[in-house]
Amino acid sequence: MESLQNQTYKEWKKLHKRKGRDKAHKYLIEGPHLVQEALHSSHEIESIIYDASYEKPEEWNYQGIDEYRLTHELFDQIAQTETSQGVIAVCNMSNEKVDLKKGRYLLVDSVQDPGNLGTMIRTADACGLDAVILGKGTVDQFNDKTLRSAQGSHFHLPVISNDLGRAINQLQELNVPVYATSLDGVNLQAQVTIESSFAVIVGNEGNGVTDDIQQRADFKVKIPMFGQAESLNVAVATGIILYWFRMKGLAK
Amino acid sequence: MESLQNQTYKEWKKLHKRKGRDKAHKYLIEGPHLVQEALHSSHEIESIIYDASYEKPEEWNYQGIDEYRLTHELFDQIAQTETSQGVIAVCNMSNEKVDLKKGRYLLVDSVQDPGNLGTMIRTADACGLDAVILGKGTVDQFNDKTLRSAQGSHFHLPVISNDLGRAINQLQELNVPVYATSLDGVNLQAQVTIESSFAVIVGNEGNGVTDDIQQRADFKVKIPMFGQAESLNVAVATGIILYWFRMKGLAK
Repeated sequence: MESLQNQTYKEWKKLHKRKGRDKAHKYLIEGPHLVQEALHSSHEIESIIYDASYEKPEEWNYQGIDEYRLTHELFDQIAQTETSQGVIAVCNMSNEKVDLKKGRYLLVDSVQDPGNLGTMIRTADACGLDAVILGKGTVDQFNDKTLRSAQGSHFHLPVISNDLGRAINQLQELNVPVYATSLDGVNLQAQVTIESSFAVIVGNEGNGVTDDIQQRADFKVKIPMFGQAESLNVAVATGIILYWFRMKGLAK
Repeated sequence: MESLQNQTYKEWKKLHKRKGRDKAHKYLIEGPHLVQEALHSSHEIESIIYDASYEKPEEWNYQGIDEYRLTHELFDQIAQTETSQGVIAVCNMSNEKVDLKKGRYLLVDSVQDPGNLGTMIRTADACGLDAVILGKGTVDQFNDKTLRSAQGSHFHLPVISNDLGRAINQLQELNVPVYATSLDGVNLQAQVTIESSFAVIVGNEGNGVTDDIQQRADFKVKIPMFGQAESLNVAVATGIILYWFRMKGLAK
């Protein structure tokens, strides 16, 4: 493939934008680590694109995946990150239907920064959650920066776009306690009854969880500020709360 | 000031690089939020640089600070972040001597990403630590991205560059338990004896805390991985550990 006019090549470039990804129901991942994760997961890889000089690892014995090798110049125009290191894959978005059950969930309300969202998905994976649910207004999970920060965790647990109000209703019907982070909340350490199932809602970097969503939650919690900082980074706050609930819940 | 040749202007531009900052013992902060934090703190502002169209807030009644107003073109060449919003200050690095005491500390070993370091300083502030100690090989605390992520927290608690081995010795002499994060460590939740004073060492994004430093610590701890993620972002991990220690320590 040596021409920029090639139809397939043009379609790949459209995947740089959310609109193009949503339309094609496909997205790009970059770098050997993510491609390896995808090969090991049930996520469907459509094609793998190699830079001319890239040496494919011997253990990548896949079948039914289209393979392309591009000149360095053409490859560079598909690559979006500094971590692509000569390999990019075109993945199909999962069509898997996820039924909520009694378990552990992170609900994300209007988080804007792709790095924050990716870090939160990675943290949710590390903490062994059952799914991450993204409300409207949250940055795209298939943004290249989100995928890079998530380090492959979106292959490990379902990351679902859903109306948060509806998700809260479903969780409450399953008797999963729903906690919203809120400046009006109870200090985390004062929460004494921690269940082994829970859902935590975190919100926008500047404005937190929207009032409407806060009011639907069963409990409001906040992380105590012991110093002079006004707030925490949302990905850090997510980690503190999820691990506090998980580790305290296990201790029971 | 309308000429790029102006000596003062040239000196400001040198503050974009660590070498220039270290030599001048000065650094730049950008945006009304950080400048306001600096005005309220004991940190010494040398000059404030305004974009031609910036309206100075009425409450900024400072004295003894040089004031400059630049054309938009000249201002833009001093600004490094998208959050400068028309105001930049030149600050003197603190000469304050910090004596370690029995308290709470974060020690940072070779963290490379400026955003991570800034987020960690912000978290250390929120958690009410007494100081953050940066070992050799850690990114500059006065990097513009670090300062932006720290959101002014470097004005709230001392951030010191020091040899980590020496700092660990001093803390141990003060009977402050020193914990290194380590893959060989004990799971965080299994740590039952948590003191109200502690020092936590976190390490490089890829390699963690160096072996030599790990061996000097009193305890090794790790955050349990409940899912399939191999690790956490270092700033998130720092938040989880610091808050776990702080909130468990208080509960006693």
